[in-house]
Amino acid sequence: MDKIFTVRLSEDKNAVEIIDQTLLPNEIKFLRLETPEAVFEAIKELRVRGAPAIGISAGFGMYVCAKKLSENNFYDELKKLGLYLVSSRPTAVNLSHAVERMLSAVKGADKKSAIPLLYEECTKIYDEDRQMCRAISEYGLTLVKDGDGILTHCNAGALAASEYGTGLGTLLLGKEKGYNFHVFSDETRPLLQGARLTSFELNHAGIDVTLICDNAASLLMSQGKINACFVGCDRVAANGDTANKIGTRSVAINAKFHNIPFYVFCPSSTIDFNCENGDKIVIEERDSGEIKTKFFEKPVAENEVKCFNPAFDVTPAELITAIVTEKGICRYPYTNSLKKLFG
Amino acid sequence: MDKIFTVRLSEDKNAVEIIDQTLLPNEIKFLRLETPEAVFEAIKELRVRGAPAIGISAGFGMYVCAKKLSENNFYDELKKLGLYLVSSRPTAVNLSHAVERMLSAVKGADKKSAIPLLYEECTKIYDEDRQMCRAISEYGLTLVKDGDGILTHCNAGALAASEYGTGLGTLLLGKEKGYNFHVFSDETRPLLQGARLTSFELNHAGIDVTLICDNAASLLMSQGKINACFVGCDRVAANGDTANKIGTRSVAINAKFHNIPFYVFCPSSTIDFNCENGDKIVIEERDSGEIKTKFFEKPVAENEVKCFNPAFDVTPAELITAIVTEKGICRYPYTNSLKKLFG
Repeated sequence: MDKIFTVRLSEDKNAVEIIDQTLLPNEIKFLRLETPEAVFEAIKELRVRGAPAIGISAGFGMYVCAKKLSENNFYDELKKLGLYLVSSRPTAVNLSHAVERMLSAVKGADKKSAIPLLYEECTKIYDEDRQMCRAISEYGLTLVKDGDGILTHCNAGALAASEYGTGLGTLLLGKEKGYNFHVFSDETRPLLQGARLTSFELNHAGIDVTLICDNAASLLMSQGKINACFVGCDRVAANGDTANKIGTRSVAINAKFHNIPFYVFCPSSTIDFNCENGDKIVIEERDSGEIKTKFFEKPVAENEVKCFNPAFDVTPAELITAIVTEKGICRYPYTNSLKKLFG
Repeated sequence: MDKIFTVRLSEDKNAVEIIDQTLLPNEIKFLRLETPEAVFEAIKELRVRGAPAIGISAGFGMYVCAKKLSENNFYDELKKLGLYLVSSRPTAVNLSHAVERMLSAVKGADKKSAIPLLYEECTKIYDEDRQMCRAISEYGLTLVKDGDGILTHCNAGALAASEYGTGLGTLLLGKEKGYNFHVFSDETRPLLQGARLTSFELNHAGIDVTLICDNAASLLMSQGKINACFVGCDRVAANGDTANKIGTRSVAINAKFHNIPFYVFCPSSTIDFNCENGDKIVIEERDSGEIKTKFFEKPVAENEVKCFNPAFDVTPAELITAIVTEKGICRYPYTNSLKKLFG
């Protein structure tokens, strides 16, 4: 895994470089994204995914593409570029957050003075994420002990961020410090990030990982094999309601039933204090091909059969044992604890 | 769908005829099973599946294969045949039940007198199932109303039985009587029976069906789209604990959380009064290929990654709103209600 990276600025600074995560685990292929369309496509098609990695890509993407904008109406064109990139995944708050930061950094500046400022800002977004993941992982380690069985859903590991990641950072950092975790990775239908990415990443990091169908998580909980559930998040509302990959809600409900702690790992940029609660979070619906044809040799259902394919669900705050951020660990009720930490 | 059948005795009475359910929905292919090995393989590989259909296949299979046994040691050879067929799916109580019935019907008889008795018995198993499914479906209809949203897991429809089926019988019978249900079918990983079979079967029956990933069920419940959950069962213990397709337990836990009734549809042959509770039910573990390679164009996880692939889980009795049988509807506590109805 040493040479694998998730997202970075190319050495010539003219491209965002990513590993194409849609091809894993069968093919390791790196892409150079040099145009707004290429960055948009990579985010929309989940070639780069995970809240922090999307934000970093958008930051680098704004910088790389800004260099090609004309000097006339530079700032207006930059805003258009930002809006365009944000529309690639409307639910991802890190994406709009990164775009806003890039725009704020150069407000009113002309192209010549803006370009170095944009470079500085996107590098800052990247570096801050590395420090953030490390801090989250240190806090996470205080919640578990050597030998614990950990259930994860989707992928919130190094492949979702700059380094370590959020949901899996504790496991990766723990491994470095000599902890032996037994990780169970939900395959995470429909896009199988748990199979393709999490089990790949943890296995390469030398962590004991067992892949399961999402359906098997409840049985494992009933058998006492799970000591804690670890998930990342796409957006956390001010009251702690958490939007994450479809199926997360069910993991949390099952964890509650079995009295197993359920932890959300969350960089503060993912908390949306403007969003009062989960009811206000728009759930992105995706193509039925992800259910019926994608990855499969033959279609698994007839063409005429209707599908419902939501990308996210919302886990109610009261089911979340703790929200682990880079500044500390918050507990229910989150309206108070989140405000206290970040207010 | 008119010409589609699940399992029947061939016209020449020398073969069990089934539709190969592993090929659905892309190919409709019927198989003639004429040897013990062919019947064993079809049951083990899920070409025929669903508790009642497996029992019927075993009954027909015993008859068809018995005709080829030698007259010497006939009954001993028949017992061996029965043991062999039972070993194809050790968890399926209908399978051993059907084999026992066939053996009891001819105890001590020589081959000549046994063959017509075996024919009579396997035909009886088939006819009883048809009547049973119809009765279960009539009782089921008393629990729902026109327009209801119904969540199903796996496949307990006509493709799992002789006609109507158990879990889906209510929907198929309701359709005949003019009910309009909105059915949501869990795809049911790893073997995707919900996608390949349930959505196929309901769509062909003209019922409004929407296919979802198992992960999306909880969101639908939270949105108020589900009025009841319908599942079949592989084995019900004396206290009502129910073994069914992996993931059923999670559906029940989610239903409880959302205050949605959860119904188990259950021919009495599936109730195992010798099995005190769910702890005594052995969970069959299946091959990791079902998770990583089966159905897929390319492997979705690396070869070295470990898997845990249980075929069933157990839903605790207290999560089951009612168990619907051909003799009536039982409610918790089931130790009393089941005994009362079948005692």
